[in-house]
Amino acid sequence: MKEKRSTSRPDRARISGLDLHVDVTGPGLRAALTRAVRDAVRSGRLTPGNRLPSSRSLATDLGVARNTVVDAYADLTAEGWLVAVPGSGTRVADRVQPRRTVAAAGEAVPTLRFPAHGLLPGAPNLAQFPRTKWLSSARRALTTAPHDAFSYGDPLGRPELRTALAEYLARARGVDVDPTRVVVCAGFYQGLTLLAQALKARRTRMVAVEAYGFEVYRNILRNNGLAVSAVPVDEHGARIDEVAKAEGIGAVLLTPAHQYPTGAALEPDRRNAAVEWARRTGGVLLEDDYDGEFRYDREPVGALQSLDPDRVVYFGSASKSLAPGLRLAWMVPPTALIPAIVAAKGDVDWSSAFEQLTLADFITTGAYDRHIRSTRLRYRRRRDELVTALADRVPRVRVTGVAAGLQAVVELPRGTEASAVRAAAELGLAVKGLGEFRFGPMSAETPERDALVIGYATPTDSAWAGALSTLCTALQTVTE
Amino acid sequence: MKEKRSTSRPDRARISGLDLHVDVTGPGLRAALTRAVRDAVRSGRLTPGNRLPSSRSLATDLGVARNTVVDAYADLTAEGWLVAVPGSGTRVADRVQPRRTVAAAGEAVPTLRFPAHGLLPGAPNLAQFPRTKWLSSARRALTTAPHDAFSYGDPLGRPELRTALAEYLARARGVDVDPTRVVVCAGFYQGLTLLAQALKARRTRMVAVEAYGFEVYRNILRNNGLAVSAVPVDEHGARIDEVAKAEGIGAVLLTPAHQYPTGAALEPDRRNAAVEWARRTGGVLLEDDYDGEFRYDREPVGALQSLDPDRVVYFGSASKSLAPGLRLAWMVPPTALIPAIVAAKGDVDWSSAFEQLTLADFITTGAYDRHIRSTRLRYRRRRDELVTALADRVPRVRVTGVAAGLQAVVELPRGTEASAVRAAAELGLAVKGLGEFRFGPMSAETPERDALVIGYATPTDSAWAGALSTLCTALQTVTE
Repeated sequence: MKEKRSTSRPDRARISGLDLHVDVTGPGLRAALTRAVRDAVRSGRLTPGNRLPSSRSLATDLGVARNTVVDAYADLTAEGWLVAVPGSGTRVADRVQPRRTVAAAGEAVPTLRFPAHGLLPGAPNLAQFPRTKWLSSARRALTTAPHDAFSYGDPLGRPELRTALAEYLARARGVDVDPTRVVVCAGFYQGLTLLAQALKARRTRMVAVEAYGFEVYRNILRNNGLAVSAVPVDEHGARIDEVAKAEGIGAVLLTPAHQYPTGAALEPDRRNAAVEWARRTGGVLLEDDYDGEFRYDREPVGALQSLDPDRVVYFGSASKSLAPGLRLAWMVPPTALIPAIVAAKGDVDWSSAFEQLTLADFITTGAYDRHIRSTRLRYRRRRDELVTALADRVPRVRVTGVAAGLQAVVELPRGTEASAVRAAAELGLAVKGLGEFRFGPMSAETPERDALVIGYATPTDSAWAGALSTLCTALQTVTE
Repeated sequence: MKEKRSTSRPDRARISGLDLHVDVTGPGLRAALTRAVRDAVRSGRLTPGNRLPSSRSLATDLGVARNTVVDAYADLTAEGWLVAVPGSGTRVADRVQPRRTVAAAGEAVPTLRFPAHGLLPGAPNLAQFPRTKWLSSARRALTTAPHDAFSYGDPLGRPELRTALAEYLARARGVDVDPTRVVVCAGFYQGLTLLAQALKARRTRMVAVEAYGFEVYRNILRNNGLAVSAVPVDEHGARIDEVAKAEGIGAVLLTPAHQYPTGAALEPDRRNAAVEWARRTGGVLLEDDYDGEFRYDREPVGALQSLDPDRVVYFGSASKSLAPGLRLAWMVPPTALIPAIVAAKGDVDWSSAFEQLTLADFITTGAYDRHIRSTRLRYRRRRDELVTALADRVPRVRVTGVAAGLQAVVELPRGTEASAVRAAAELGLAVKGLGEFRFGPMSAETPERDALVIGYATPTDSAWAGALSTLCTALQTVTE
């Protein structure tokens, strides 16, 4: 489950006082960064007296050399835009008169964008992408690959990656799998698209999806000719009993480990009931294990798929564990569905062989496990800090859902969701209301809820404390 | 236009006397190679007295360290399977009694496959993939990328790559383009799929395709709800006059620079007629410029797209210029079609950001141009050698089409195509008959032809001379 680029849309360009997020791409980094800061001051997004981040932390956040930032700051100081205050860092010069003009969005490459300071769900901490280790794996992969690896690939994906994933998924997620049943996809988006086409080919008409979820996935199903109905969700996960009562459902899309976004874990009785439903009706369960590795209060619950590999399609992805930009996901479907999935792929691999070989090396050398372990600690700490800060500063709200994943649900007093989102936005902080994920009408089974879905993984380390504090401030204003 | 994996299908496992093609993947290269050769001798695919390739050339062909081959040969010599003959290399030992058993295909990873010695069209020389330069670009790309590059990407693709491609395509192919109009895709397969969906959305019903072409592409159009009709092809390319006469055609898929696979260049009058047709009818031209950089007798003809960027969708790809395994292609559609293409992509990028940044660096540093230049020389030499060898040894056949690309058409005496394919197969050489590419009935406009489509790019350098000689031998037997 994921959100797309929400933090980088130019139309949400905004900047908070002490956190400068500059997306500088393309050649001429120093000039681009200089222009970006200059434009921010000119347009009033940075105001006189604002302190800029240290060159070291901005360089880390942007992923550029520290000297690039030092040089850009020096240029701007020479031009009179900035002033270096001994012992207090670099600030916007006092004499600057902001002109409140807005630059045209996306005017030229390199593009410069000032995204909101955000706590949006759907992505990991990209500043912690393990570049050096990934590059080592890439080097080994490229050096040792047979020539044949550069040709049109097996539509199931590179055998090296399927072997590595099979071992990993069996060990870490309890998936019932061997390499011949792993299908590599260009992201969960492609995986679900392929599955929708395979289901359509076997005359499935309707897919039940959780009453809270990511709208894009419902659209994928619809765009591939499937009807979509809602399954109520409560604090124990999806109400499988409601699926069993309904007519005409051929498949159910579930997030058993950590319901997206409400955060419930599907309870054991319901896991069994789901598999029983599939066996009785010939239906298929789609298990979206988008963040299954990230459980903080206990060992992760193993995959539902292992209860019946002939009835459950397991989906996993590198988008939460590593980075969405890799566009690598995988599924373990029942053997009987594989020919239809291969046909939907057009009998060709859609994913870069080089990237697949790199991930295979990254997994088999243990770097993947190490990365999961270290990010798990970091996200766990952030979740704890979120819970503590809210308990401390905004006692009227409550964090719900299991201690897991990359986002948490903050339950609000009735009727305050929209004003909470607005209050945060006014402070330069982008957050999502739970209502954006809702599907289907309110009912006794799915009562109205007011809540925020807080993605605590995405901010850089330097932005996290400020974002959390801003969130608390915003929530104080609406709950007091 | 491409063929998939035809040279590596285990069901075509075969080996010619002096060319050992072993696909060794996964860990344990030395053991795997040893087992592969041992199995080949046991099953009689290598017979006593057969000389094995030198360790240097086999290592190059397989993309493994030379020592791996030296060690494997040493193991096999110690076991008595091979014998080192001073001054004459390594041969299969005389005392070996072949057992004619066939090993089960794909029994375990690492997989070992003995593909046919082949001259199949559709892929470049993968042994010449510029691994070292590519890795340098990958290192620079990964080191300098902003963190944001690892997030969900712009559905049009990374701006760095779109900028690099726009500059390259304008310069090298005369495309009328700027970065905002470049759309990156996961191979031409995805590009055509997206276009088909965009055409369907604007109520196009029928797409005309050339009467010779790649069947997979016709199927993509059909699978997306479009009807497909045939345009006759002659030695001047597609018969645009026949498109103009027909009713109900909303788009035409063309290969103007080098008709696939017949090799004709679309003549200037027909290029103009195609654009006129599109303007008059509101139709769209799809220009598949799959190998436009490879012209040997003159400067390449520029893209048809420049005649009317509002009526032509330009498609290019890294599959012929670098390697299909990258899964990187691009299109430059009319601006008006871009929203429908983005919608078909689900508003998300499907291609690895890292791979896109690597190609962007590879282009902007000049490595792409250098690679094109050097492979152009190599392919040109191979085409010349093909023409010369056939003129010399098989005077009854004739190479047709312009001097360009990665494949040539060898015209055969009437009625001999099937027997030529069979004769080559009996000598362990996989080739394709032109008939496999034919679409639509024979007619006065599209008369019957007997020919082979010879892909001269794919063999490794060590396999090329043998493959060419085998081709001549096979054709001698059917034309004499």
